[in-house]
Amino acid sequence: MAITNKIENFRMQVNEAFVNKAEALRPRLLEKEVTPRRLVKILPQGEDYRAEYAAPAEALGTMPLGRGGRVCLDFGDHQVGYVSLRLTATGSPPDAPAWVRLKFGEIPYEIAADSSAYHGSIAKGWIQEEFLHVDSFPAVISLPRRYAFRYMELYVIDTSPKYQLLLGDVRCVSVSSADPAAVTPLPTTDPALLRMDQVSLKTMQDCMQLVFEDGPKRDRRLWIGDLRLQALTNYVSFRNNDLVKRCLYLFAGLTQNEGRVGACLFLEPKLQVDDTSLFDYSLFFVSCLHDYYEATHDAATLQELFPTADRQIELSLQELDDSYVVKDKNTWWCFLDWAEGLNKQAGAQAILIYALKQARLMAKWLGDERKAAAYADWIERTTQGALEKLWDEGKGFFLSGSEGQISWASQVWFVLAGVFPREKNAALLKHLIAENPPLSMVTPYMYHHFIEALFQSDLPELAKKYLQGYWGRMLEDGADTFYELYDPENKAASPYGDRLANSFCHAWSGTPAYFIRKYMQ
Amino acid sequence: MAITNKIENFRMQVNEAFVNKAEALRPRLLEKEVTPRRLVKILPQGEDYRAEYAAPAEALGTMPLGRGGRVCLDFGDHQVGYVSLRLTATGSPPDAPAWVRLKFGEIPYEIAADSSAYHGSIAKGWIQEEFLHVDSFPAVISLPRRYAFRYMELYVIDTSPKYQLLLGDVRCVSVSSADPAAVTPLPTTDPALLRMDQVSLKTMQDCMQLVFEDGPKRDRRLWIGDLRLQALTNYVSFRNNDLVKRCLYLFAGLTQNEGRVGACLFLEPKLQVDDTSLFDYSLFFVSCLHDYYEATHDAATLQELFPTADRQIELSLQELDDSYVVKDKNTWWCFLDWAEGLNKQAGAQAILIYALKQARLMAKWLGDERKAAAYADWIERTTQGALEKLWDEGKGFFLSGSEGQISWASQVWFVLAGVFPREKNAALLKHLIAENPPLSMVTPYMYHHFIEALFQSDLPELAKKYLQGYWGRMLEDGADTFYELYDPENKAASPYGDRLANSFCHAWSGTPAYFIRKYMQ
Repeated sequence: MAITNKIENFRMQVNEAFVNKAEALRPRLLEKEVTPRRLVKILPQGEDYRAEYAAPAEALGTMPLGRGGRVCLDFGDHQVGYVSLRLTATGSPPDAPAWVRLKFGEIPYEIAADSSAYHGSIAKGWIQEEFLHVDSFPAVISLPRRYAFRYMELYVIDTSPKYQLLLGDVRCVSVSSADPAAVTPLPTTDPALLRMDQVSLKTMQDCMQLVFEDGPKRDRRLWIGDLRLQALTNYVSFRNNDLVKRCLYLFAGLTQNEGRVGACLFLEPKLQVDDTSLFDYSLFFVSCLHDYYEATHDAATLQELFPTADRQIELSLQELDDSYVVKDKNTWWCFLDWAEGLNKQAGAQAILIYALKQARLMAKWLGDERKAAAYADWIERTTQGALEKLWDEGKGFFLSGSEGQISWASQVWFVLAGVFPREKNAALLKHLIAENPPLSMVTPYMYHHFIEALFQSDLPELAKKYLQGYWGRMLEDGADTFYELYDPENKAASPYGDRLANSFCHAWSGTPAYFIRKYMQ
Repeated sequence: MAITNKIENFRMQVNEAFVNKAEALRPRLLEKEVTPRRLVKILPQGEDYRAEYAAPAEALGTMPLGRGGRVCLDFGDHQVGYVSLRLTATGSPPDAPAWVRLKFGEIPYEIAADSSAYHGSIAKGWIQEEFLHVDSFPAVISLPRRYAFRYMELYVIDTSPKYQLLLGDVRCVSVSSADPAAVTPLPTTDPALLRMDQVSLKTMQDCMQLVFEDGPKRDRRLWIGDLRLQALTNYVSFRNNDLVKRCLYLFAGLTQNEGRVGACLFLEPKLQVDDTSLFDYSLFFVSCLHDYYEATHDAATLQELFPTADRQIELSLQELDDSYVVKDKNTWWCFLDWAEGLNKQAGAQAILIYALKQARLMAKWLGDERKAAAYADWIERTTQGALEKLWDEGKGFFLSGSEGQISWASQVWFVLAGVFPREKNAALLKHLIAENPPLSMVTPYMYHHFIEALFQSDLPELAKKYLQGYWGRMLEDGADTFYELYDPENKAASPYGDRLANSFCHAWSGTPAYFIRKYMQ
């Protein structure tokens, strides 16, 4: 199954007033100049790679590089920004153009990997490497593209037999719209907790740009699935609530056919909604608006954007069968997680119920009791449909699709949808852990929902155990920011067919700070 | 033996007044906008490649290119200039950067060849290809570097599964300081002769930039060996004599240690002489000044630059042994030709005599009889030395080096040096042709001197035969401009270990117009 979709006869509907409101909230990017901390060697470590100290950064000045020469710079932490450098020639007058390659890696693996062997399904253009001819020296090169990286390698494909290169004045102007000064320090001295919070916030910070990006390496755009989790973490950390508001107005101002909220938005070359449509992602507009109001009590925005939320509910209800259960499809119609073979029907049903409950609350906040009652009806019908058609009392699990698939994702989302009381949810989660059905979770995004479900089901110790067992292991593996994808047992895992395309600073993975600050203080 | 050298304790001596005179003569580049004529396929042909018509240029507009797509544009003739193009995205909104490669080729082979397999000794940076990420569409891309090419290939390494590229608005602003309108048309209707003249002049035109470049693909700089032949051709065609004057002042204004004229000059990042020194090339300053005065009768320049010429003679005379023969060396000390294993001693001796005779003439023109007489003495001594130590009456050839090597280059240069009367020279050349010693000529540059020797020895029919047999075969092979290197029996020949580094528009190969206009009308 292709992991893309394209809405039929796609066209964008623009609400200029909404877009103008969003643009008025365009943030100023905070800039910080960063220089390399040290030179490193990238060495194999098990099935992965690690960076080992090689020399102080100052050693660059005495390191002439000719054909085949290379040097790897370590900027000390994850950066998102614009790199400039200076190449000087040493030896005879340069009698030929230099031909160099620059690689930028969030993790050492990206430096070590041979990009010419890339065989992923998604664009090779995401690999952060550039090939440059330099005709005249000294050359001050300001690379025009933004990179997400900690490591930068210069590889000299060739100079000429008569001269070598010296690399110098390397710097990165790092950018983010998040202000770390806005974050309240944690009232704990537990170094493990502090480190997890710090890496989580760094992940969020580096994804906070002109919008909440999913990942600064890839896709560098506003996905609503990521936005929802970013916003939740933002409310307890950077508190840049206007950035959430801006993103809500963008999604509401740039919709697809029939007023459907798209899965993601592009900023360049112009503001536009993508033609990708996902059942769960459209409904997350409801969640995002609900969460935004809960955090800000911004009634004007709630009032103005509620019709957009309501429209997503309407469109989703059109997908129900006679039993009030979401119809399954053979396409990539709903996201949930990257787990291969995952059937989405049950998860989609749970998310619909989850969104209906948030929509009902919003209607109440707005004093629209008629709407609230209508939502309540739908909650009742879809819950009944789920219990009758998807719940298997014997197995103690929700089943999904025509083959009755039992997955972690389905159970987790039904816990979050609250179709059972808290105790029964806790029992379901324990049963899930005990039975461990093979269709497990593969992304931090899905793990987030599992942890949230555990906390909400009064199982904080289990929640902490899994937080530590998953994000904690990423930290043990040396993560500076949390990875888009993480399987402790298979470092090469990628839904794109090649790990090189993975993002290693990804918004949906940066929620530990949310859990720590919401549930663990 | 390395095909580079580096003068010991190199330093540049600058004569500011000379450099200022040269800079005052900096030419204006004439610009011409050229668009692709057609789309072609590059197909194997024997051991080489050819371009075959594929579609009209307009077909680009309906040719979406995704991962692995490619298209080759034919600009109809050789161009030296700056390329711009437009990339538009078609399909869904572009959800990833495009990653494309552009290749520029003077001949089809450069498009077909796999540059990653390049194994030449000289810089890989000369290969005209660029790798570009394009983040936003439509993208108007103005490539900042100058290319020498007829063919341009766009290869789409990747877009994404959701969109393709359309290439459009491709244009080249071609540049040259030569004005074709200054050239008198040939008074002939012989199409073969007209074609040879035309390709020769196009070669010259494309090498005439801010100085006389050796080749616009490589090395793109002022080599005095090339300058000498370019100037000779220029006097009978473009008549841009100020450009010759500028180059003479540059060489005289930017010398090496002891006032030695360097083998070549760089214009960027600043005007500077290279640290490469070649015995014959330094002496060619004498020849260039001699030829310039003969063509222009510019007495002021002759007077001002004659001391520089004289200094080259002085320095060369220091290299004589007790028999007044140039001492041989194990290094790459004298050029003559790229023929592998060629011993340079005899050729160097002949060039010294050749230059001494031109210096004597210049001294006479300047009325300096004392200098003229001193040169005459040296001519006598070096000629005697050559006849006693290098000439083998029994073999009927000049021998070179300790092993008495018999090469084409040695005989040709002794003919040009005029140590024998015209009839004996003619006999020597016929003997050379008949015996055909294995150390033959490998460059059009050396062939030029052979043809010149034939014409000067009253053998015009043989001269025309070899002109046709060598340059004529290049035309049959499809040359749009004459190649730096050409071996009709081995198209892959290269002194650099890989044909991909060869220049296919090279000044020293463009002299047929000189022969046609001087000897064949």
